Amino acid sequence: MPHIALPEGVPGIRSALQYRPETAAPLLQLAEVLLRGPNTLTSAEREMIAAFVSSRNDCRFCHASHRAAAAHHFGGDYSLVDAIRSDYDQAPVSAKLKALLAIAAKVQEGGRCVTSAEIERARAEGATDVEIHDTVLIAAAFCMYNRYVDGLATFTPEDDAVYDAMGRRMAHQGYVNRT
Amino acid sequence: MPHIALPEGVPGIRSALQYRPETAAPLLQLAEVLLRGPNTLTSAEREMIAAFVSSRNDCRFCHASHRAAAAHHFGGDYSLVDAIRSDYDQAPVSAKLKALLAIAAKVQEGGRCVTSAEIERARAEGATDVEIHDTVLIAAAFCMYNRYVDGLATFTPEDDAVYDAMGRRMAHQGYVNRT
Repeated sequence: MPHIALPEGVPGIRSALQYRPETAAPLLQLAEVLLRGPNTLTSAEREMIAAFVSSRNDCRFCHASHRAAAAHHFGGDYSLVDAIRSDYDQAPVSAKLKALLAIAAKVQEGGRCVTSAEIERARAEGATDVEIHDTVLIAAAFCMYNRYVDGLATFTPEDDAVYDAMGRRMAHQGYVNRT
Repeated sequence: MPHIALPEGVPGIRSALQYRPETAAPLLQLAEVLLRGPNTLTSAEREMIAAFVSSRNDCRFCHASHRAAAAHHFGGDYSLVDAIRSDYDQAPVSAKLKALLAIAAKVQEGGRCVTSAEIERARAEGATDVEIHDTVLIAAAFCMYNRYVDGLATFTPEDDAVYDAMGRRMAHQGYVNRT
């Protein structure tokens, strides 16, 4: 049961966004720009970073929903996002994305954990400064969203089909105008 | 030295906000609503929560600047915000604020660390659901801002006077239209 009187039956962050529209607006706008705005990283790559960080923060709702969003950028194929969760360095993704995931993993631990070693690896694999910036901010933002969702003990559906439908909407319709 | 080519000599988060205006807009809007929007918690109380979480995340820039912002809501008096940092349960602040700081401390550790014990304590001290919500989100948001600032290794001034001037502006002019 949620810690406060959130709208009943509304899953995860959506219940908190409905509860407090004043903060919902910038939170949704941030997700839209970070995950779907113009970028040399694909939305699929950015959703995979979001799902990866959420998994490391043990946030079931955010992991399941962004896992599904990532999958729906590949027509509903969950194999890549699940391979990243298991062992990103062995996953069949680009060397650049692996290097960015290594940065995201450090950000999840704490900002000061990121060292020049991770940055140099990412540059060597062709990552630009903007891509490094956006990776740091996506990882940091999910350390917020994950804490927001779990810190209020929001309703977490059990049924994978709920997340699959949610991820389809996130991938194809986005984050704004959804509260 | 920052990990990426941020504007030189611009301190902390401001360098990252200037670097990437697309994400700066929602990040600043979120800070403005959370810390200065209409609320039954004072801006001083909200800045003290922000400084407290930043201190626990060991983010020198965010701690020093929000510490100064909190102080400038008391005419430049740093005693309360520093007492909270030392031992919030012994600080000369309201029992309600102590209970909200206990929630913030749990959110800083992780969203799942918040239990009904902290929520019941806050309610017993008169906190409303919206105040609990906002405390969770302020704490979560500073887990983002702190990681953003330190994950990019932004420039951190050493001089306390820089933060004092910054905090004065944050307290009296706010967060939007400042990049």
